[in-house]
Amino acid sequence: MTKYNIAVLGATGAVGRRIIKLLEETSIPINHLKLLASARSAGTTLTFKGQEVTVEEATPDSFADVALVLSSAGGNVSKRLLPEAVKRGAVCIDNTSAFRMEEDVPLVVPEVNAAALKEHHGIIANPNCSTIQMVLCLEPIRRQFGLNRVIVSTYQAVSGAGQSAIKELQAENAALVNAVSQPTPTILPTAADRNHYQIAGNLLPQIDVFEADGYSHEEWKMIHETKKIMLGDMDAPELKVTATCVRVPVEIGHGESVYFEVADQTATSADIRALLNNAPGIVVEDDPSTQLYPQALTAAGRKETFVGRIRPDLETHGAFNMWIVADNLLKGAAWNTVQIAEKLVTQELI
Amino acid sequence: MTKYNIAVLGATGAVGRRIIKLLEETSIPINHLKLLASARSAGTTLTFKGQEVTVEEATPDSFADVALVLSSAGGNVSKRLLPEAVKRGAVCIDNTSAFRMEEDVPLVVPEVNAAALKEHHGIIANPNCSTIQMVLCLEPIRRQFGLNRVIVSTYQAVSGAGQSAIKELQAENAALVNAVSQPTPTILPTAADRNHYQIAGNLLPQIDVFEADGYSHEEWKMIHETKKIMLGDMDAPELKVTATCVRVPVEIGHGESVYFEVADQTATSADIRALLNNAPGIVVEDDPSTQLYPQALTAAGRKETFVGRIRPDLETHGAFNMWIVADNLLKGAAWNTVQIAEKLVTQELI
Repeated sequence: MTKYNIAVLGATGAVGRRIIKLLEETSIPINHLKLLASARSAGTTLTFKGQEVTVEEATPDSFADVALVLSSAGGNVSKRLLPEAVKRGAVCIDNTSAFRMEEDVPLVVPEVNAAALKEHHGIIANPNCSTIQMVLCLEPIRRQFGLNRVIVSTYQAVSGAGQSAIKELQAENAALVNAVSQPTPTILPTAADRNHYQIAGNLLPQIDVFEADGYSHEEWKMIHETKKIMLGDMDAPELKVTATCVRVPVEIGHGESVYFEVADQTATSADIRALLNNAPGIVVEDDPSTQLYPQALTAAGRKETFVGRIRPDLETHGAFNMWIVADNLLKGAAWNTVQIAEKLVTQELI
Repeated sequence: MTKYNIAVLGATGAVGRRIIKLLEETSIPINHLKLLASARSAGTTLTFKGQEVTVEEATPDSFADVALVLSSAGGNVSKRLLPEAVKRGAVCIDNTSAFRMEEDVPLVVPEVNAAALKEHHGIIANPNCSTIQMVLCLEPIRRQFGLNRVIVSTYQAVSGAGQSAIKELQAENAALVNAVSQPTPTILPTAADRNHYQIAGNLLPQIDVFEADGYSHEEWKMIHETKKIMLGDMDAPELKVTATCVRVPVEIGHGESVYFEVADQTATSADIRALLNNAPGIVVEDDPSTQLYPQALTAAGRKETFVGRIRPDLETHGAFNMWIVADNLLKGAAWNTVQIAEKLVTQELI
């Protein structure tokens, strides 16, 4: 049996740490696990299967003997290092947006479009967290009933902006509770923009920077990644998607209020509930009579995506509302990455 | 000049306290202010214009010499006491949902439908907090461009569930910060339902109890109150409305992601921005280039409703997204109530 040398790039981050944990339970035969990060984090010790592993600084030569790279460092790191890894024969799964829209880079949610993996040229992109949980729930509906239109509003946890954003929320919450003056925010809404605002007790309708058309880049991603994953074309006109993305004072667990219109006007809420109940990776939590619905706290730490509050628009035929929650660091990032790695191995694409 | 005897019913609550504060600045000539509450809260002392006022237990006879009642006790209290007040000659403005859908009870947002006040028979209803801020922004658009459809997702602060819900969030946040075990929740998502869940660090897609059709009563209110306020008919078919209401761990300030379709296909985002800029009670905060958009923290304590992120759906003509935030205890409750009182006085309807 082939055993693989695997590298985790961005090993010390919120997603990197979860990838390492998930690799402890994976079916992939691992020969050697290399943990890579920036020079600043090099020397940190992390645990893998009970053994201490020292994090090394990532350089092009780090990938010389590596078969598979699971990357969740920043976009610039990916742009600089992943082509070097590919040159040295590695296959890379990247969690950043660096390569997602390149024509020859598959953008994959395994339950939705695992078939796209076989067209890879060394780099496979992991989609944006908020996109993954939505397409996972929409794809079974699209296949069965046809999907014309999606209008989504997100409630996104701060961990989507990394470990430092979690710390920022915690420090702000502590200041609120202790009634002392607030620390100056330096991360949220996004480290990439000029102004930073308190997230504790607040709502920030900005995730990532703004495009010229007034949409945030996160909203742009939800529109175009959804089309690329479900239809293979980032501009596919047959599915209309619009999005509003909002950061909320939650550590882990993205919520999404998703409105959608199907082609088959005979579809009912009961049909959709049954369909999603049988779909891989999805748990339907939908019983108003017992107050059962997805919550951020109950989704945190779980690999599955949770959906509930499925109900028809009472005035528009073939239109529905639903509420989706997933752990943005697991299915939204680390778990989807490890799932892709497992598919690459079982489909002998590595 | 006539001076009025005014009673505040529910004086010790989160909304009642704000009503008293706003009455300190009102143009209404006040002869005597009576503060009323349940037997449990009677005896509490509150301050009005520098004077201490003792809260009295509300009974039918409390209203004997009162011209105007501003009520924000619970729905059952309103149902029991307001007809008694009307019998004794008072005009009542009620913050609960007790009378909102009765045919002869005007449901009023003064900037939108002040004209409805003249049809009152003693009781005027203050709409639901999340409805007020939305119709305030939609009405100028409807008048100018026609409005066909609204799809709204709310991000609602815990203060909408009263003072005890604020305390619950604060206690839970303190437990998180101090890393001690969580207190057992007893209020949220709603005191009226069986199960209670932690709101700190969480998202709860339930506000009020559920109806048989799977919508929460809060969602029902947003649909039917919007139609009654804007079109005078709670079932008006010419405007389609659907809603998803979610509680978020924020103390004050409801956010709303509002998607809407207009009749006039020539309307642009710039037109809508200009229109709302000139509309009463609205502040447009909409400049992505300087990261200017409505936030819960910046709206808290303000009487105005804030709107931003106004942008067209890039794939559907005549459709737009916008983001609205208001202080749910002020414009969503106390301030709208005092505005109605002022209109009643200036229009000599009392």
